[in-house]
Parts: sequence; structure tokens; C-alpha cells
Amino acid sequence: MMRIDILTLFPGMFSGVLNESILKKAQEKGAVDIRLIDFREFADNKHKTVDDYPYGGGAGMVLKPQPIFDAVEHVTAGSSGARIILLCPQGERYTQKKAEELAKETHLVLICGHYEGYDERIRQYLATDEISIGDYILTGGELGAMVIVDSIVRLLPGVLGNEASPVDDSFSSGLLEYPQYTRPADFRGMKVPDVLLSGNHQLIAEWREKESLRRTFLRRPDLLDDYPLTDKQKQWLKEWEKERE
Amino acid sequence: MMRIDILTLFPGMFSGVLNESILKKAQEKGAVDIRLIDFREFADNKHKTVDDYPYGGGAGMVLKPQPIFDAVEHVTAGSSGARIILLCPQGERYTQKKAEELAKETHLVLICGHYEGYDERIRQYLATDEISIGDYILTGGELGAMVIVDSIVRLLPGVLGNEASPVDDSFSSGLLEYPQYTRPADFRGMKVPDVLLSGNHQLIAEWREKESLRRTFLRRPDLLDDYPLTDKQKQWLKEWEKERE
Repeated sequence: MMRIDILTLFPGMFSGVLNESILKKAQEKGAVDIRLIDFREFADNKHKTVDDYPYGGGAGMVLKPQPIFDAVEHVTAGSSGARIILLCPQGERYTQKKAEELAKETHLVLICGHYEGYDERIRQYLATDEISIGDYILTGGELGAMVIVDSIVRLLPGVLGNEASPVDDSFSSGLLEYPQYTRPADFRGMKVPDVLLSGNHQLIAEWREKESLRRTFLRRPDLLDDYPLTDKQKQWLKEWEKERE
Repeated sequence: MMRIDILTLFPGMFSGVLNESILKKAQEKGAVDIRLIDFREFADNKHKTVDDYPYGGGAGMVLKPQPIFDAVEHVTAGSSGARIILLCPQGERYTQKKAEELAKETHLVLICGHYEGYDERIRQYLATDEISIGDYILTGGELGAMVIVDSIVRLLPGVLGNEASPVDDSFSSGLLEYPQYTRPADFRGMKVPDVLLSGNHQLIAEWREKESLRRTFLRRPDLLDDYPLTDKQKQWLKEWEKERE
């Protein structure tokens, strides 16, 4: 079973997310053991202070090294090879590939920062990974930790069951997903493409392949840089490039 | 006051995040009015079904158009110019620039998908924006909605107060943030750089500028593509490129 320790000053933030939907089921099934640790409890000063002014001046407060070092040493005692992951805007950008890599681990420690950030020594001497979930600023690392937990837990064996298949997802295949439609075939005059109602599985498969590629070409051409295109797909791309000119 | 309506099948997921930290304070201060709407309540069929099989076959279920169209029309009745934002992996990648743009709006509607995705007509005829918070797969749009709300609310006037300054953050300046240190100057033999203890403000400012640029150069050179470099900064970059060779 995978173990995930989340170090945070706001454990209450996680209550809704951990107690609903797939994360709740995964814990009940024994696929993952998620623990919340308030690292303020590890502060060795009388007032349980976890932050202090930055050396050199400047606005905001910086997280002190002591409480976080001690909390990490506490949760990793007796375990070896844990990944110590710092959530921070300076980290490596999180991707589905990283989620798949982390899903193979047995013990993850996620550290959620707040305020102006971490004392640099936490980054340099304690963390094994630094992750950013995107190029935007959040008030703390908690939402990043939730994103990592959710993206990893759904990949663990037995968690998704028949509810959904992780194989066809956007990014897993390398392309964005094709358009999906469900009933009614005509909703307020907006219609489902005829091909999807045709019952011709070969035509449907080709339409989906083409629309998946077209959407990726139009919205995220960067994803095509590493994609192994077939000859037919190269031909489609040529046509669309011509149309655009 | 900004109004945000969140359409979701799992309103309980939001309880922790909306009732802690800055989001709680922002609501108490009257900077934002956040409402949770379970769009299952808008389903016009007896069993309150919100999803159905995809036309053309395939695994998973697709969100039906009717409940979401009706829920959006309900929350936007009497309001004009609301941004209708679909959280989905095929969307535009969310950035700090987009957060700053959305922070100027008065009414946002965030739609959280689940299962295999949305009926395409929701995307084509209802949404004004499609947003993805990153290139990874989550079990639903709820975490994306929380990320958007958190990143926007902290930019609203009066929310952050003196707790932190949004100006010096990574991405706001265009560069990653410089290393920060706090007491003690020596933690288990790991030391704070001398310059930060020097009291020389000019040297400290230059060190920070240089380390901020160095970190960006090493970790996220893509951010430098659009950055207006000074002559001194160009010189530093040349030196680091030489060192690397």
C-alpha cells in the first residue's frame, strides 16, 4: 500500500477532498494511506512559531528550517527511500509523466509551504523533488498537494475499476481527447455529428482519431513535437496547415 | 463584490478549502461571494441522471447537456457578461496572466466536469472559456476550480493586506523568486550566505537579482524568452552559459 504524508499548517483544508469521491474509496479499499501532519506541532519554541523574518530584509515571512526538518524525520523514521516533495512555484512543472513515475513509489512526503516561502536549506538539504503544478501563484502548497494526490491515486491498481479508463485520457495518449456527445441527438437544435449515429465503427474510429489530432493541432501544437505521427496523420496536418494559409 | 458560482456534483469537496485561510477571510470581508451549485438538482429526468453513454461507443460516461445548460442559465439570470469557464484537460493552460485577467471580472461561473468529460455542445455553445490547470489528469474539475478561485481571490483588493505582497512573487515579476533564509544563521552546520548578514542593502539587492535570474536560467529558461533583460543581466547570462560549456 502506498503511504502519503502531507505536512501542512492547514490540515482542515483537506477534509472535503479526502472524504469524497475517488480519494475516499481508494482509502477504504486500502490502496493508499494518507496522513495529515500539522508541522506546527514540531516547532521547538515556546510559541510554536514556524516562520520568521527573512535575512536581508523584505516583505513577508519565511518558513523556518527546524519544524519542517523535524517533521520529515519523524514521518520517515524507519522507512527508506521516501520521496520528499516540496510544493513551490520554483519547482519542476508537474506532468502526467511525473504522476506515473510517482505512482510507482511506496512513500511520498508532500510539504505544503505558506507565506513568502521556505528557508533555502529545506530546498537544498531535505527535499528530493520540487514540484510546481503550474505557472500561477496560490496562497499555499495545499492545493498542489491535493492535485498530486488525486492524479497519483487514480493510477494505483484497483482504484478506478470500471468507472473510467485512464488509457484514453488526454495526455496519456499524447493527444487531446476527441469531442464526446451523448443523448439527445438534438438538444435545442444543436445536433450530434451524423457519423457518430451511423453505427459504422471504422468510420467512427477514424473520425475520432482525426478530431483528436485536429484539436491538438489547433490548441496545443507543442504536444505534437514528441508525438509519433503516422503517414496518414502527417497528411491531415499538411491539409490543415494549408487551410490555415 | 465578485461573485463566483461553482457548478459541481461534489459540493462537499469544497468545504475544507473554502472555510480556511485566505478564502475564508476574503468571504468574511465581503470581497467575494462564492456559491456552490450541485447541478444534479437541475436534471429534468426522474432519476436525476446527469450522464449518459457516449454516441459512437467507448468506455466511460459523458455529462449530458441539459442539466449544465439549465444550471448556468439559472445562476446567470439577470446578470450579463458572466464568464462561463469549463475546467477540462483540453482547455487553455492557466497562467498568472489569466488569473490577473479574471480577477477584473464581476461574475465567474466555474463548471467542474467528471467522468469521461462534457457533451461537446456545452463546450461549443455555452462556455466562454476552457481552462486546464496543467498537463495531468485529475478525477474531476473540482481541484481546478479551487486553484482558480484561490489564485484570483488573493488578487482582489484588500484581501492579502500586509500578510504578503503579490508583487515579488515568482511569475508576477517574470522571474523565479530568489532564495530566502531565516534564523538561525547556522542550522545543523548549514549556513546562511554571508551577504545576507552583511547589512549592505545594495549588495543584498544585487545578490537577490542575480540569484533570481540564475534560478530562472537553470530551471525555467523558457520564462526568459519574453523577459526584458538589462545589459548587466545579459552579461551574467553570458558568463553562466560559458561556465556550462
